[in-house]
Parts: sequence; C-alpha cells; structure tokens
Amino acid sequence: MEQQLQELKQRLAEVFDLQMVGALLSWDQSTYMPSGGAEARGRQMATIGRLTHQKATAEEIGALLEDLQPYAESLEADADDAALIRVARRTYEQQVRIPEALVGEMLEHSAASYDAWTRARPANDFAAVRPLLERTLDLSRQIANCFPGYQHIADPLIDMSDYGMRAESVRAIFAQLRSELVPLVQAITAQTPANDVCLHRHYPAEQQRAFGEQIIRAFGYDFSRGRQDLTHHPFMTKFSLGDVRITTRYNEHDLSDGLFSTLHESGHAMYEQGINRSFEGTPLANGTSAGVHESQSRLWENLVGRSLGMWEFYYPQLQAAFPTQLADTSLDTFYRAINKVQRSLIRTDSDEVTYNLHVMIRFDLELAMLEGSLEVKDLPEAWNTRYREDLGITPPNDSNGVLQDVHWFGGPIGGVFQGYTLGNILSAQFFAAACAAHPTIEAEISQGQFGTLHSWLQQQIYVHGSKFTTDELVRRATGGPLDIGPYMTYLRKKYGAMYQIG
Amino acid sequence: MEQQLQELKQRLAEVFDLQMVGALLSWDQSTYMPSGGAEARGRQMATIGRLTHQKATAEEIGALLEDLQPYAESLEADADDAALIRVARRTYEQQVRIPEALVGEMLEHSAASYDAWTRARPANDFAAVRPLLERTLDLSRQIANCFPGYQHIADPLIDMSDYGMRAESVRAIFAQLRSELVPLVQAITAQTPANDVCLHRHYPAEQQRAFGEQIIRAFGYDFSRGRQDLTHHPFMTKFSLGDVRITTRYNEHDLSDGLFSTLHESGHAMYEQGINRSFEGTPLANGTSAGVHESQSRLWENLVGRSLGMWEFYYPQLQAAFPTQLADTSLDTFYRAINKVQRSLIRTDSDEVTYNLHVMIRFDLELAMLEGSLEVKDLPEAWNTRYREDLGITPPNDSNGVLQDVHWFGGPIGGVFQGYTLGNILSAQFFAAACAAHPTIEAEISQGQFGTLHSWLQQQIYVHGSKFTTDELVRRATGGPLDIGPYMTYLRKKYGAMYQIG
Repeated sequence: MEQQLQELKQRLAEVFDLQMVGALLSWDQSTYMPSGGAEARGRQMATIGRLTHQKATAEEIGALLEDLQPYAESLEADADDAALIRVARRTYEQQVRIPEALVGEMLEHSAASYDAWTRARPANDFAAVRPLLERTLDLSRQIANCFPGYQHIADPLIDMSDYGMRAESVRAIFAQLRSELVPLVQAITAQTPANDVCLHRHYPAEQQRAFGEQIIRAFGYDFSRGRQDLTHHPFMTKFSLGDVRITTRYNEHDLSDGLFSTLHESGHAMYEQGINRSFEGTPLANGTSAGVHESQSRLWENLVGRSLGMWEFYYPQLQAAFPTQLADTSLDTFYRAINKVQRSLIRTDSDEVTYNLHVMIRFDLELAMLEGSLEVKDLPEAWNTRYREDLGITPPNDSNGVLQDVHWFGGPIGGVFQGYTLGNILSAQFFAAACAAHPTIEAEISQGQFGTLHSWLQQQIYVHGSKFTTDELVRRATGGPLDIGPYMTYLRKKYGAMYQIG
Repeated sequence: MEQQLQELKQRLAEVFDLQMVGALLSWDQSTYMPSGGAEARGRQMATIGRLTHQKATAEEIGALLEDLQPYAESLEADADDAALIRVARRTYEQQVRIPEALVGEMLEHSAASYDAWTRARPANDFAAVRPLLERTLDLSRQIANCFPGYQHIADPLIDMSDYGMRAESVRAIFAQLRSELVPLVQAITAQTPANDVCLHRHYPAEQQRAFGEQIIRAFGYDFSRGRQDLTHHPFMTKFSLGDVRITTRYNEHDLSDGLFSTLHESGHAMYEQGINRSFEGTPLANGTSAGVHESQSRLWENLVGRSLGMWEFYYPQLQAAFPTQLADTSLDTFYRAINKVQRSLIRTDSDEVTYNLHVMIRFDLELAMLEGSLEVKDLPEAWNTRYREDLGITPPNDSNGVLQDVHWFGGPIGGVFQGYTLGNILSAQFFAAACAAHPTIEAEISQGQFGTLHSWLQQQIYVHGSKFTTDELVRRATGGPLDIGPYMTYLRKKYGAMYQIG
C-alpha cells in the first residue's frame, strides 16, 4: 500500500505542478505580458491545460485509487491519507468525464475571450465580445452535459466550485437572504446617503500601495511567500504553498478601490498560505470551495477591514500618510464613507449590503443562459432591466453594464457567482464563531492586533485545505450548518448603529 | 506529405510551447518570485523539463521525420520546409540520446544551484555551493557521455550551443585571437588609464531606466512585443516571437552597468523579435547559435553603443537627463570613460579589449574540470591564479572571483562561454559587412538613426532564425567564413585613436 500511495502522490504532484504552471501563465498574462504575447499565450495555456487533463485523468491514477480504496476505508475518516484518497477520487471521477479536447478548447477560448474583454470594456463594445460569449456559453453547456442526470444544467458547474451545492439549494438560500436584504437596503437608501467625498481626493498610487501592504502584513499575509502586483481585475493565485500572490489596481481618485481589493485578496491568500505544508503537491493543497474561499477574503475585507474598531487604530496612521487629503475628515465621516450603502453598478466596488443583489442578478442571468431561456444577444438588455428592477439604476452603457464583470469573459459561464454570496454568509458565521471562542478578538482589532483571529482561522479553516467539505468544515468550526443568521445579525447591528432602521 | 508535415508541426509546436513555459518559470524565478517559492519552482521546472523532453523525443516525431525525409530532399536546400525538417531532425537526434531522468535531474539541480548561488555570492561563501557545483560537473559529464565518440568531452556540450564547433576549433581561434589581443592590452594598460569618475556619481535607477529604454526603442526593440524587468544577472528570454523580454539591473553608482546591459540584451531580443513569424512554434524560431546570438548583443552594445558617433547624438540628451552629474564632463571624457580598458575582475562589466581574456579563463577552466584535470575544490585557487597570470590582478574574495559569474551555477558546465568570444568576433564581422553594403550607416548612427543597420541585420540575420547554420549564415551575410580580422581591425582603429599604440 505504501508504495502505491507514494506512486499516487507522485502522479498527483505532477498534475499539481502543471496546474501551478497554468496559474503562472495566467498571472503573467494579467500582470506583465506585453500585448504581442497574447496569441501564443492562449495556445500555451491550452497546451498546459490539455497536458494537465491528460495527466489528471491517466488510467494509472484510477487504478491506484481503486487499489488504495480498502486502505482508505481502513483509516479514520479524518486521517490525512483518507482525505487525500477521497478528494483525489472525487476529482478524478469528475475530470475523466470531460473530454480532453473540450478542456483545451475552453482554455484557449477563455484566453482569447479575456484578451478581447480587456479591449472591449473600455471601448464599450459588447458586439466585439458577443460571438466569443456565445461560444463560451456553448462550451459551458457542453461541460455541464458531460454529467448527465443533473437536476439543473448549472448543477455540475456549481458542484465543481462549491461541492455539495446545486442550483436549487443555492436558490433557496438566496431567496431567504433576499427577503431579508431587500427591506434593509430600502430602509438604508431611503435616508441621506453617506458623504464619501473624502475617498475621492487625489491619492498617489505608490502611497496607497505602501499603506495597504502595511495593513495586510499586520493581518498576517507573509510577503516572503507572496507578493502583490498590478492588474485590471484583482485576483489571488498561487504557484505553490510557498508562493501565494495577490494583485490589485489603484485608482488615484478612489482610495477604497485599491485598499479594499488588497485586504480582500490578502484574505484569499492567507487561506492558501496557511494550508498544511504536508499537503503540498496534492489536491488537498487548495481551499475547499469557492464559498469558503470567499468567506476568508470577505472576512478580512469587511468584518475586519470595514469595522470601526480597526479604523480606530489605523485611521490616525492613514491621516498621517495622507495629511492633505484627510486632515479635515473625522473618523466617523471616514467610517461612514467606507461603508456607504448605495444602489450602484459595479459589483466589486459595491457595499456589503447591496453586494449580494449584484451577485443574484448574475446568478439568475447565467442560469437563464444555461437553460436557454436567455440568448446572449439579449443579455445587455436583460442585465439593464434587472439593474433597474433590483437596484433602481440603469447602466449608462455596457462598460458599466454587462461588460463590467470579468468572469464570463475569463472562464465558463456558471459555477462562479454563487460562491460570492455563500462567502458573505460564511464570513459572518466564521467571525461570530471566532469571537465566541475568543471574546477579546474585537478589542484586539481596535489595537491593530490580529493574531488571535488569524490563529483561530489558521486552526479552524486554513490548515485543513480541502481535507473537509464545506459542510464538514462549517460544522466543525461553528457547530452548525451554513446559516444566514449571523450575517443578517451582523448587518443589522452594524448598519442599525449608523442608520435609523425601523 | 502535407498531412505528415502538419502533424510534425503540431507536435513541434507542443514542444516549443513547453520550452516557452519553462522559460517563463525561469524568468519569474529570476525577477518576481518570492523566496518561499524556490523549492516548488525547482520541482516545477524539472516537471516541465521532463515533459518537454518526453514530447521532444516521442517516437512519433522520429517516424514523421523519417517519412518526410524524401520530401525534404526533393526541396531546394534553402526552402523553409527543408530547413525545418533538417533542424528538427538534428535536434531530435541529439535529444533522444539524453535520458529523461538526466534532463529532469539537471533542471531540478540547476534551479537549486542558482538559488544557492544568489545567496552564496553576496555572502562570499564558495563552500555553500561547492557540493552543488560538484554535482553540476558530474551531471555535465553524464550529458557529454551520452555522445560517445567525441574528440574532447566538451565537444558535445559545445555542439549544442554552437553547432559545428569543437573544443579544438575553438582553441585554435582563441589562440590566434589571444596572440593579437595580449600585446594590445599591454600597450593600452601601460598608459594612463581613462578617468571614469563621471560614471560613478549618483544616478537614480528610475532615470537610468527611462534613458536606456529610450535608446533601445530607437534601436528598434519593440516594447509591444517585449518588456524590461529587474534581476540579479541580466538576460534575454522569450515566451513566443511576440513576447521577447529583457532584464537588467541598476547600480546607482555605476551608470554603465545598467545602461550597457540594457543595450546588450536589446540586441539579443531584436534578433528574436525579427525572426520570420511563420517559424513560430518550430525549432527554426530561435537564434541559430550562441555565437551568432552574442554577436547581435555585442554589436548593439559595443560597435554601436560604445561608439563615438552614437554619443555625439545622445550625449547632450544624457547630460540633460543628468545635469548635476554630467554638466562638467565633456563628450571626449565620457567616451573614454565608457571605453576604459582595465585589468578587472567581472566579465560582464569588463571592457571590450580585455573581455575575451575573461572568457578564455572560464573556457580553459571548464575544459579542465570536464577533462578531470581540475577538481571543483581547487577551482577558487585556479581561478585566482589565472586572473593573476592573465589579467595581473587577484580577486580579493570569491564573490569577485569564482562566484562572480552565474553560468556554472545555473546550468551545465561547458558549452556556454565560447559563445561570448565567438560573438565578439562575429559582431565586428557583421558590422563591417553592413557598413560595406550601406556606407551611410555610421553617419546615420551619429544622427541617432539606426534604421538602415537594423534593416540589414533583419534581412541578413534576424529573419532566418535557425534556418541556416552559423557557418552558412556568416558566409551569406559577409561573403566568407568566421574571421578575427574585422574584429582586430575594429579594436586597433578605435583604441589606436584613443591611445598611443606602437
């Protein structure tokens, strides 16, 4: 058994390395690659994707997993080897169903589509990406159809990111959340909006970078095992557990854009940096689901990063870094500015109360496209209609409408957006559990101390990687299943203190 | 035939893509990778190296080449397809001889060795890299021994970089060159050395970058298909013909370090950027040999970049960029400073007269190590002895001695250094041919115009990639074989005008 386990690990490490190489190709494409490299890069990503798929679906892996099944069953369920074999088997059984050619085509197409999007968005040119998006939809359905027997065509795509979830279960959670969020948004936006002019003065990019990096270093992001670079659309990526990078962008007339992106991506990155190093090179060396991953980014971005406590400590430092911009702005004004609730157009810039409404629009639209009830040609109008209905605001153009979000232009349609809202829900649930275990956490945050929180997350979430499913992890860390309760409690308490909420 | 040719090209493109991916892993390692990524990166480079080797040596490629041989023979010798099949065959026959495990081990070992060197050099710690270097030597000999029947054990390694050359032929050229160079160095260094204090004032890195990039843009380096980043040891790399990058370093107290590195690497890069785009993805899409590659970098660095003509145009701009540093320095003083001849320690910083003496030391030492007549433990002393004998100067420590040059710490021992001196010889030979064809070139350079020279190189050298061997290329471009004559004529004329040479 030992020998077969070693052989399995060796084969999985090769697959892992190829995935990491694919991530590097993609990181470089989004950060430093000159435009002349785009065409070949698409081909290279497809080549690596094909090879990864070949190696990941090699019959030998299937045979080893078969041979190792009795061994896995002889172990405690939460033994590392048992988890490794279980997760490797689940992944293998999923991947063998998707033909190699389809994997390669999706990768090559995604690269071309992303490249076109980076030009189409500033040019407000949906027509330029429409045929590409139609092809993306077609390829996404082909992938879903590799898993016949689904209840909803999006189910296989959702399952890949948020194992255990389906369109129906997500819709049920979203419906419940929506029924509580909509009145809250109405109650807040009926009142005088916060004045956020202080965020829109001139903030030089270099000083923004220095300040943001100082904070995430204090959070616990390890720069000796990571770095931050510039990109169009911020993301976290990793090339090994010792090299987990983040990217951001700076808008010199919007302090919150770069700052909260940095805090957000650092949350993703600390999760990956904290994974048990003995999992390196195996499928356990990843966050367990899109939802849990997002919970970690949102926890640091919002529960910590937009808290009054944290800014009681950091605001004087921020004022010192930007004296001409902030000298006349009080902490209270700043705190209200970074938590301004408004009916807006851009998901990633939106406040934590309306954010989920943006997500639900995208989730519903992608389900409709996958079902075939919405055609790509009608998407811009459907997008604008939903924004008018749900957020009471009409995008002035496609750049700020259907083109504003990267996801449909950089990968499949379906399986991504639900993770954002699941993450918001979980972020509050995990934070509440951490504070229940360590009642000093909030006081420590007001002193610029994040060690107790980071340690709790390290032990309860980070270290486990993909060893536990989302449901297992949530139950172990919080004592119960996913629950919107703590999230709504958090929002009501925080915004209740800022606004008159009846 | 057409179908087989297409299949061959497809297989070669996959190999090419994997090579480019390996180059990206390496570029990232040398530019942006945090230290925590080193261990996994070594493994990743080895994984990609193994896969590249597997794909490059697939029996199917051998069979296709066999099938296509009659077709190749039916074509004119200088038809692109004939060259493709010829070069692919040569490469294939070379690669099938080296076992996959050895390729992987050399790659993994090189990454570890390079990483150790980046720490050992500043720490002056040869002992830390000695065992690694011993292993490198062992692996290098194993590679050479995959090609039995050689005359000298270095021959197979030399042949990989400079096809058609052998230790014996290189030694003959070097002996001839040395006999002419040594008296020239003596005649110059017997005189009052140039005053280069003007180069050692404080030059902020960012302004150095801006100035250097302005010049190479004028040379013809295309930034839409490339970029420049920082590293320890400057190099050129490519990820496709549309993405050819250079790296440099800046020393704020040595203007020439970053400036001439930039010009040098731009010469390598323009060669690759100029290759026939229809060769993309094939073994023709590379420079044809180390020597020819180096001729292109040295031509722009020295024949152009250290010429009086170029600085007649650029020196006023340089003074404008650095007014406090250069206001009191005349063009003549600056010109003599950037061409200062001295007995020094660092190859890459050395002047063009003594440069080849540095190369010959390394070439002789690596041949001795490969032969077994010099052990790694005795290398620092042998290095210092040769520096004393040949250059009349003793390295004060290993950082400026045996540790100063990257090559033995980032790849095999053998097959690299000869290319530098072959390149110097060829740079003058090509430049002379260009000026003979277009007598206006030197006058144009004095006007900051480089188009005629760039076009000649584009047509005579760049576009052909690896289509012709070094010997064929040199004969086509200059009308004769490799010849040290133009190089010595160039040195004698240039330095004769600056010094009293009897």
